Amino acid sequence: MKAIETISWDDAAGAVTLIDQTRLPGRCRLVRCRTVDRLVAAIRDLEVRGAPALGIAGAYGVLLAARRIHERDHALFLRSLSAEAEKVRTARPTAVNLSLGVRVVMDAAERAGSVKEAKENARDAATSFADVESRSCHAIGESGAALLPERCTVLTHCNAGALACGEWGTALGVVRSAIVQGKEVSVIACETRPLLQGARLTAWELQRDGVPVTVIPDSEAAFLMQRQEVDLVIVGADRVTRDAVFNKVGTYMHAVCARHHGIPFYVAAPLSTFDPVHASREVTIEERARDEVASCGGSVVVPDGVGVKNYAFDTTPHDLVTAFVTDIGVLHPPLDWEELGRAFGPAGTV
Amino acid sequence: MKAIETISWDDAAGAVTLIDQTRLPGRCRLVRCRTVDRLVAAIRDLEVRGAPALGIAGAYGVLLAARRIHERDHALFLRSLSAEAEKVRTARPTAVNLSLGVRVVMDAAERAGSVKEAKENARDAATSFADVESRSCHAIGESGAALLPERCTVLTHCNAGALACGEWGTALGVVRSAIVQGKEVSVIACETRPLLQGARLTAWELQRDGVPVTVIPDSEAAFLMQRQEVDLVIVGADRVTRDAVFNKVGTYMHAVCARHHGIPFYVAAPLSTFDPVHASREVTIEERARDEVASCGGSVVVPDGVGVKNYAFDTTPHDLVTAFVTDIGVLHPPLDWEELGRAFGPAGTV
Repeated sequence: MKAIETISWDDAAGAVTLIDQTRLPGRCRLVRCRTVDRLVAAIRDLEVRGAPALGIAGAYGVLLAARRIHERDHALFLRSLSAEAEKVRTARPTAVNLSLGVRVVMDAAERAGSVKEAKENARDAATSFADVESRSCHAIGESGAALLPERCTVLTHCNAGALACGEWGTALGVVRSAIVQGKEVSVIACETRPLLQGARLTAWELQRDGVPVTVIPDSEAAFLMQRQEVDLVIVGADRVTRDAVFNKVGTYMHAVCARHHGIPFYVAAPLSTFDPVHASREVTIEERARDEVASCGGSVVVPDGVGVKNYAFDTTPHDLVTAFVTDIGVLHPPLDWEELGRAFGPAGTV
Repeated sequence: MKAIETISWDDAAGAVTLIDQTRLPGRCRLVRCRTVDRLVAAIRDLEVRGAPALGIAGAYGVLLAARRIHERDHALFLRSLSAEAEKVRTARPTAVNLSLGVRVVMDAAERAGSVKEAKENARDAATSFADVESRSCHAIGESGAALLPERCTVLTHCNAGALACGEWGTALGVVRSAIVQGKEVSVIACETRPLLQGARLTAWELQRDGVPVTVIPDSEAAFLMQRQEVDLVIVGADRVTRDAVFNKVGTYMHAVCARHHGIPFYVAAPLSTFDPVHASREVTIEERARDEVASCGGSVVVPDGVGVKNYAFDTTPHDLVTAFVTDIGVLHPPLDWEELGRAFGPAGTV
C-alpha cells in the first residue's frame, strides 16, 4: 500500500500542500496554501477534512502564519500569530483536533524567548504533531485489526481513511492493518450524503490499495445488516466527549441499526479526538449550506423556497459503541476519563 | 389543494398522459404515451412511479394496447393483448399494483364475447380501477388523519403523495386530510437517494399545496428523532406481503430508528398494495443501474471499477409497523389476512 500524502509541510517553500478532496475521484489535484487565508478556505470548503487531518492542518496553519509574519518584536509577533491562529481554529467548529493542533503549536511558539526561537519551536511542534498523528493511525490499526474476524465485511461511513489523516487512516487504518495481517476484509462504503465522502474518497483510496469495496446509498445499510451482509461497523470520530461521539451525520443511524441487529459498532479515533472538557451540549454542530443538499451536480433537486436541514455531524451516545479503538488500545465504554486524562499528557488541555 | 393529475387516459387521442417525474422540480412536463412501448419505457425510467400510480399505469397500459391492436379475430386479439399486457406487467418487478392493474383490465377483456366488447370492457375496467385508486387515497387520508396529533411533525421517505397515486396520496394523503381537518402538520421529507424522490417530488407537491416541508439527507432522520424533532413516521408501500412491507430502500432503517426512539411508524397503503399470495422471499427486489448511484448530475462520484449495490426497495417486518393505514381503516399488526381476503374481492387474486 503506497502512502497517500494527504497534507504536508513544504519547508523550502513555506507552504502547506494538500490533496484537494473536493475533486476526487475525478482528479487528484494538489493545492499549495501559501497564506493562512488560503488554508482557512481549504478547511472551510473541505479541500482538507477528517478530524486527524484537520488537527495537522491546524498545526501547519500556525506554522504557516509564523513563517509569514515578518514582525521582529517578540510580543507583537505573538499577538499577530495568535490572531492568525484564531482564524485557523474557528474555520470549522465541530472537530476538536483542529483546536488541538492550533493550540499545540501556539503553545510551543509562546514558550520561546525570541521570534527566531518561536518560529523554530512552531516548526518542531507542527511536524512532530503531524508525525504523532500518523503514528497514531498505525497504532489504531494494530489494535483494531485484532477485533476483526479472519474473513469479514466491514461497513463504514464517510471517510476515516488516509485522506482524513496523515496516512493509513483510523477506521480504514484498522482495515489496512487487518489486511496486512493476512485477513480477508471487504468494505461497504456508505456514500455519505450530501458530499459523498464515502463514494468519492473511501472508495478511491481503498481501490487504490486493492481493497475490495462496494458503495451503497446510506439508507441501504440497515437492509444489508438485515440480510446479514455486514459483520461489523467501524467509523471514525470528529470529537469524543464524555457523553457522545460526534461524527459525520448518519453515524448515529448506523449505531442504532447495528445495535438492533447485534452487530459490533466500533469507533476508531486517536486520543487527539477525545475531549475531556466539554459536554456534548456545549459543542456546536456545524450546519452547512442549503445548497449542498439542494443542488446535485449543478441541477436543482430541492424546489426553490423549500428549507433544508444540513447538519454535518450527529451524536452517538457511548452505550451504542461496542468499543473505541484508540492509539492506546481498545477501550470499552464506560470510558475511564481519569486514565484517559493521564494518557493525554499536555495535549489534553484543549 | 388543487389536484395534481399524475396519470390520466385521453380517450379521444387513445393515449396515456403522465407527468414526467424525472424532470421535477425543475420542469413539470407532460408526456403522452401513444404506444405500449413508450409507456413501458416511462415505467422503467420512473417517469411514472409509486405503487398506486403504477397500478393505474398497468390498467391504462392494457387499455392502450387494446386500442392499438387492429386484429378482428377475438382469440387472436386476446393473444396479442396478453403479450402486450405482459410487457407492461414485467416493466418493474416489485410493486404488486402494476400486476394487479394489468390483471384487472386483462380479465375484463377476456370476459368479453367480441373484440368490440373487449375494448369497451377494457376501457370501463381501467377507468374504474383508476377511480377506485383515487378514492382509496381519500379513505386512507381520512383514516390516518385521526392518528395525528393536533400539532405534529411527520417524517416521510420517498414520495407517497399525489405523484405516486392518482391524486391526494397515501402517506401524504394522511397529511393532506389532517390539514383539511385543521391540524397543524409539518413534514420532514427525506431526500431519498439515489433518485431523490423526496427532495424532488414530495417537497414539490407539498410546497404547491402550502404544506410546510423541510428536506434532509436520509441519514439525518435518526438524529432528528434523537433531538425529538419527529413525532411520527408515515411511509407508503410498494407491496405488503404476509411477512414484510416492501417500500423504497431506507424505509427499514426509519422503522428500526423509530422503534428505538418509541416513535409511531405508520404504513399507508390501499388494499391493492397488499399481496396475500407471496412470501417476501418470493418477491424480486429490483436492483437498479449502478449509474444512479455512481453519477450525480453528470459527474462521476464513484471511481470507475468500484461496485455499487443499488436495491430499489427494502423489507420491513410487520412487527416494526405501529399500524397500517388502509382504505378499509387502520389495521394493527398482526394482520388478519382472512378478513383482508374478504375485503379484496375479485382483485385479491394477483
